[in-house]
Amino acid sequence: MLEKYDLKKTADEGAYEKTLESYKERLNILQRTLRDQNVPTIIVIEGWNASGITMSIHEIVQALDPRGFALHAIEKPTEEERARPFLWRFWLRTPPRGKIALFARSWYSRAISEEMQKHAWEKSLAGRADRINNFERQLYDDGTVILKFFLHITKEEQKQRLEERERNPLTAWLVTPAIWNIHRHYEDTLPIIEHFITRTDTDYAPWTIIEATDRKYAIVKLYATIVKALDKQAEGLKEVKQKRAKQKELSRPRKNPVKRRSSPDRKFSKDECQEALGSLQIEMLELHYLLYKRKIPLMIAYEGWDAAGKGGNITRVTRYMNPLGYYVVPVSAPTEHEKQYHYLRRFIKHFPMGGDIAIFDRSWYGRVLVERVENYCSEPEWQRAYGEINEMEEDFVNSSGGGIVKFWLEISKEEQLRRFQQRANDPLKVYKITDEDWRNRERWDLYDKAVDAMLARTSTDIAPWTVIESDDKWYARVKALKTVMTTAQKLL
Amino acid sequence: MLEKYDLKKTADEGAYEKTLESYKERLNILQRTLRDQNVPTIIVIEGWNASGITMSIHEIVQALDPRGFALHAIEKPTEEERARPFLWRFWLRTPPRGKIALFARSWYSRAISEEMQKHAWEKSLAGRADRINNFERQLYDDGTVILKFFLHITKEEQKQRLEERERNPLTAWLVTPAIWNIHRHYEDTLPIIEHFITRTDTDYAPWTIIEATDRKYAIVKLYATIVKALDKQAEGLKEVKQKRAKQKELSRPRKNPVKRRSSPDRKFSKDECQEALGSLQIEMLELHYLLYKRKIPLMIAYEGWDAAGKGGNITRVTRYMNPLGYYVVPVSAPTEHEKQYHYLRRFIKHFPMGGDIAIFDRSWYGRVLVERVENYCSEPEWQRAYGEINEMEEDFVNSSGGGIVKFWLEISKEEQLRRFQQRANDPLKVYKITDEDWRNRERWDLYDKAVDAMLARTSTDIAPWTVIESDDKWYARVKALKTVMTTAQKLL
Repeated sequence: MLEKYDLKKTADEGAYEKTLESYKERLNILQRTLRDQNVPTIIVIEGWNASGITMSIHEIVQALDPRGFALHAIEKPTEEERARPFLWRFWLRTPPRGKIALFARSWYSRAISEEMQKHAWEKSLAGRADRINNFERQLYDDGTVILKFFLHITKEEQKQRLEERERNPLTAWLVTPAIWNIHRHYEDTLPIIEHFITRTDTDYAPWTIIEATDRKYAIVKLYATIVKALDKQAEGLKEVKQKRAKQKELSRPRKNPVKRRSSPDRKFSKDECQEALGSLQIEMLELHYLLYKRKIPLMIAYEGWDAAGKGGNITRVTRYMNPLGYYVVPVSAPTEHEKQYHYLRRFIKHFPMGGDIAIFDRSWYGRVLVERVENYCSEPEWQRAYGEINEMEEDFVNSSGGGIVKFWLEISKEEQLRRFQQRANDPLKVYKITDEDWRNRERWDLYDKAVDAMLARTSTDIAPWTVIESDDKWYARVKALKTVMTTAQKLL
Repeated sequence: MLEKYDLKKTADEGAYEKTLESYKERLNILQRTLRDQNVPTIIVIEGWNASGITMSIHEIVQALDPRGFALHAIEKPTEEERARPFLWRFWLRTPPRGKIALFARSWYSRAISEEMQKHAWEKSLAGRADRINNFERQLYDDGTVILKFFLHITKEEQKQRLEERERNPLTAWLVTPAIWNIHRHYEDTLPIIEHFITRTDTDYAPWTIIEATDRKYAIVKLYATIVKALDKQAEGLKEVKQKRAKQKELSRPRKNPVKRRSSPDRKFSKDECQEALGSLQIEMLELHYLLYKRKIPLMIAYEGWDAAGKGGNITRVTRYMNPLGYYVVPVSAPTEHEKQYHYLRRFIKHFPMGGDIAIFDRSWYGRVLVERVENYCSEPEWQRAYGEINEMEEDFVNSSGGGIVKFWLEISKEEQLRRFQQRANDPLKVYKITDEDWRNRERWDLYDKAVDAMLARTSTDIAPWTVIESDDKWYARVKALKTVMTTAQKLL
């Protein structure tokens, strides 16, 4: 594919400056228009070493208002980033609404350079391509414009440029042996890049190949493509998405539907449960040590009715964990800042590193519970969310080797009323009950329906839901701890 | 100092559980009270290896609502953190208003472990102690409660505990050769720790030594101290600060006062200036390469009257910088989130790594300009800010080896009016002029006074102000670029 492009020369050298100037002006205006339209934009510049990535960024940056863009030069991941799923650091770098994120190299070069050492790169890269397509599609569905460029030069041209840089004392030290080594493997890399570009060239995030031998031609084509695409966006002529990259089949919901009950089969005495907890907690401590030592991450998401006992349950489950190895992420309504991003980003940010246990006190399932019921998002948005969440969870498990435990704490409507009244009458607990709790209770049936849909559509093999019968809070604590331990054991 | 404490036993073993339970309840209530009072709290737990830091954290955490605290386990700095000033990562971990930050180890163990390898630790640690005192005092002045604990055990006790851990397969792998090595140097470390604790034991951030041989005693003393201190805070009985740690003398403002003028001595033609710019920009590119290669950071802060030409000036100065080696930080009013922290934190967050140039389009000087004039902060707050800013800049320069360039872009009141009118009449520039600009102009005299005070009180030897006579925008660009280059040359 890359070979089919001829190297073209800009016909009229004199017209170059003028053309460029008018593109810059146009891009500057488009930046303001998209800001006013709240559209986030991602521009990815990839290419061979010495193909002019930095120079291209330099040219684009000159057209932009610094208040409205961020430049991300992607290098090797830091230790912290390496301890997280592959796409984690790119999720954190997605632009807020109305802003532009420019990537000098991206998830693509990282995927290719990390996979090329391995055998069977074709299969491995295919997995990465699927995950990248999901990532880009999710951003696109959220309104992000994504433009991707590959700067192409021949091996001979690359050699000349590297030699030129070596002759200049200012740049000589940048041309390392590693870069020459990659140069020598140009022919081996070419088919991998072609394959990867083909698999990730989608309507929602298209690639443009830039023939970069003639720098002026490259810049003009880059600008022309960007301006044309953003013009379309600004005029609301967003193309209809048809060509979707082939998606890996998502792990299907389990055949046995998740049963919702608020009471366990038989009664348990408090003493019985406390004794069980006591012995389990020692085992839990051991499991936690092993997870920590083997750098396996674990996520625990707590959802449930108001007053179902999430707080107390978390306290018991964590009592015998090492406090340096777990953390609780309390989730409430998104802040103004968080609302500027894709709704999943604020959760992905808190994903655990290898060895850590992240406990979410409420979670990303808010999208299909409170946000659905209270109309904080549109129906297409929460309908889409089931698949997006399944993808996100699958990506986490597959790329980190970790596990996800999801608890739905079920109580009966009568039990909730009893607990609300108890709280209202206890001066030490009255702060726990708010008007909002009573309002939510009035919408019990709507929430009930949302919970059913959530359990049916997001209980997957890799991240199944566990319903905790919580009318009996002691039983609930034992069951939660046991479930966490069973999952942890499977991961070891 | 550490030896003078006897090991005490809790008299009544049976009363222990009861005492602890009541402390936990009290701390839980205090957490809510301080949340309502918007008071941030820092609790630092330091101590010998195996002295029980994790266990202490575990106990405290059980009393707290997870929504209101964050636990920071401080280990070796990451690559990114190492590329920044020593206190940078701790600034980012300070708690927002109403929340608690718990530190399992902190800036103290890092300072000691990093310095102990070097010769002349006494002098070196003294410098660290001064900087830490400044850090803690600035947080205290902003309303933060700071409590610091050192868990003390004897060398013999430490040996027994390490051996005990080695016998347990779950913990054996944690007792590394490095830990035994530190154990062997217990006697050498003791005076260093004593010295450091003495120098940083202040009224605004006091130390409490916890005799940690008897674990129950240690926990009770820890809780008792925390609850007592927070009780005082909650009741508004905050102690009067008298005992201030001896501060290093701050770099004094320069004797030559900074002269403010809006026009240069002689007229410059546009052609003359553009030519100068052209040749300087090549040199600038070279300097930038060297800064980058030698990992020297540089900060450039732009302040100036509205319409003084900050944007255009930044564009020219950066035109020949490598876009991957600089970034522009646009500063506007703090967000709700940013307001929850010390006002300097949002700037410190963007401090450059070694090799980067950070350009602030408006800066931390907003505290003594717009925030002073518009009464967004109180007079004691902005009065305090001059010293705080000098300390912050000094800390950056001393700990990073980098430089700070500060520009005040001066224009005359008449020139500003001319530019406002020009903008208002140009359809492509009208978006640049807002009602707020006109309102600010009405307060010219108030701003004028604030600028004078700022230049007089914060132009220091290590971070002097440069006034840019900006009535002539071409001259202004040349002078700014020249100033940046002079500073960069001195740093190489």
